[in-house]
Amino acid sequence: MKAARYFDRGDIRIEDIPEPTVRPGTVGIDVAYCGICGTDLHEYLDGPIFVPPAGHPHPVSGESAPVTLGHEMSGVVYAVGDGVEGLKPGDRVVVEPYILRPDVDTSENNPTYHISPDMNFIGLGGRGGGLAEKVVVERRWVHPVGDVPLDQAALIEPLSVGYHAFQRSGAKAGDFALVGGAGPIGLLTCAVLKAMGVEVAVTELSPLRRQKALDTKVADHVIDPAASDVAEEVRRLTGGKGADVAFEATSVNVVLDTLLDAVRPGGVITVISIWGKPASLDMQKLVLKEVDLRGTIAYVNSHPQTIKLVQEGRIDLAPFITKTIGLDDLVTEGFETLIHHNETAVKILVDPHS
Amino acid sequence: MKAARYFDRGDIRIEDIPEPTVRPGTVGIDVAYCGICGTDLHEYLDGPIFVPPAGHPHPVSGESAPVTLGHEMSGVVYAVGDGVEGLKPGDRVVVEPYILRPDVDTSENNPTYHISPDMNFIGLGGRGGGLAEKVVVERRWVHPVGDVPLDQAALIEPLSVGYHAFQRSGAKAGDFALVGGAGPIGLLTCAVLKAMGVEVAVTELSPLRRQKALDTKVADHVIDPAASDVAEEVRRLTGGKGADVAFEATSVNVVLDTLLDAVRPGGVITVISIWGKPASLDMQKLVLKEVDLRGTIAYVNSHPQTIKLVQEGRIDLAPFITKTIGLDDLVTEGFETLIHHNETAVKILVDPHS
Repeated sequence: MKAARYFDRGDIRIEDIPEPTVRPGTVGIDVAYCGICGTDLHEYLDGPIFVPPAGHPHPVSGESAPVTLGHEMSGVVYAVGDGVEGLKPGDRVVVEPYILRPDVDTSENNPTYHISPDMNFIGLGGRGGGLAEKVVVERRWVHPVGDVPLDQAALIEPLSVGYHAFQRSGAKAGDFALVGGAGPIGLLTCAVLKAMGVEVAVTELSPLRRQKALDTKVADHVIDPAASDVAEEVRRLTGGKGADVAFEATSVNVVLDTLLDAVRPGGVITVISIWGKPASLDMQKLVLKEVDLRGTIAYVNSHPQTIKLVQEGRIDLAPFITKTIGLDDLVTEGFETLIHHNETAVKILVDPHS
Repeated sequence: MKAARYFDRGDIRIEDIPEPTVRPGTVGIDVAYCGICGTDLHEYLDGPIFVPPAGHPHPVSGESAPVTLGHEMSGVVYAVGDGVEGLKPGDRVVVEPYILRPDVDTSENNPTYHISPDMNFIGLGGRGGGLAEKVVVERRWVHPVGDVPLDQAALIEPLSVGYHAFQRSGAKAGDFALVGGAGPIGLLTCAVLKAMGVEVAVTELSPLRRQKALDTKVADHVIDPAASDVAEEVRRLTGGKGADVAFEATSVNVVLDTLLDAVRPGGVITVISIWGKPASLDMQKLVLKEVDLRGTIAYVNSHPQTIKLVQEGRIDLAPFITKTIGLDDLVTEGFETLIHHNETAVKILVDPHS
């Protein structure tokens, strides 16, 4: 079958590889769509980061580069292994793409399996990926999506990132949230916040991205930080109080500074973005305002609720799909578009069969 | 009466000033002891910080330098104003030294009165102070201490800082805490943690301070960061897991880095110290470990529980009192000792009557 294989920085190849085998406890999925994630871009431009470099196999998967890419996948079950319950061929599914140590409790009772040692992702750390025609995944990580269209379903994974960030923040209906950055994760976090009854303002330099936030109806207010004092504007919108919660989705230091100014005393800033260098943090402000700065990564037991938000129509994922391409065009049409035209491209999907 | 008056950086004078008047709703306190706080030292060396500079009156107190210093005070009630309930002359008391806007809800139902706008402290922002023979304080901020000795009672205020930091951290009995720094606030935070059933390790460069942490029995383990890898040592002590909570009480960046390494995934770092410059924060670690970095300042509804810990004998404050001096020796014996011999001096008390 065709698969996108990551060899090294700048070296991704579309190759023909053997189909994976459906073993006991696993589910064979015919991939319909797979999104390209910012993490994939980082691997391409600056990696390997999550990908285990050639000769350094991941302690759990035992694999190293080349590995199949893609972790934002939707598809249809074509086979189930012995002992698999609750799924049958023909079911539409998405994957929660975890690679975890065998001794980790992956039940709903463990709210921290996603930050257990050696955690990695299917599609980065081995075990196949969504940028291939087929993938075989342990039953635990396969979630049925019912009648959610398969192209939209491919966005459940990044939407779960936003859902988990929302949970980490402690935001509740009636709160006021300031989101720093209207890239894909910023926008999808806005979507979750809006669906949960939170008033949402987004600060974003790019006019095209600000327009996207308005067009997709995920933000109540958009603020241009070049034209106005964001913290002052947020105080104006909140009767002088400041934002209850803020989300850092840019990894840009000035945005972090802005959120620290705009959040109310006792407020929470949740950092979703991956930072390549240390941040400069105004600790005095953190202390005197008693701000909580909380890291958030990926998702944990988040997929079922995230899927429900989409099934109930509380979040419409269609407007976030920019275009769909074939696997052969992954680098030229996918990666290069996202690198050079990232103001207009939100989510590019890959159909590995075309 | 005699009082220590802060005029400006490096300029503190012992002067004779009029006695304050006991008005309706206020309590007249004959000061027994007042501790010298790190904040007082900062005002002396680098201030004015909390003190409103001459000509710039505080919006609530209406006062500016010179102001009477001292906010860690104990004493005996000598008079109560009209309408004061629950206190009578002869009662031993301590002061929760807040200056807050009149419209702030200061009831127990408001967990954030301490971070309300324009918050300042009695003994820094006006309204008298504990480094004087007498002080008059609103009833709300006066807490009876029963039979707690008055010298120990003067340490209730900094102990409340530790109590509130403990509350902010979410630590619970059975947790493992790493405290960065065994200065006065670090030690008193350790004391609260120990009293609440938390296992305590403290990392501290100074051998004298490490010894103090052992002598006062507030730490189960002391770690010399010059001699061993603190994070590794904490993992060894916790069966590989890492600290559940950590406390930053030094405002030294390398200590923050150490705590970020030593805390477990999903752990909490509470920052108690006042930082004079921005911190460099390894955001990648904060995100991938989902650490919470929480600022904490002063106390809120903390005095009653803190007093109870001392009354019940769960915390012994006596070992933290280094010496007692007279008001005339405040700068020479107090400030200069704390500046130049701060490894051995924990808390120096001032008796304003001697």
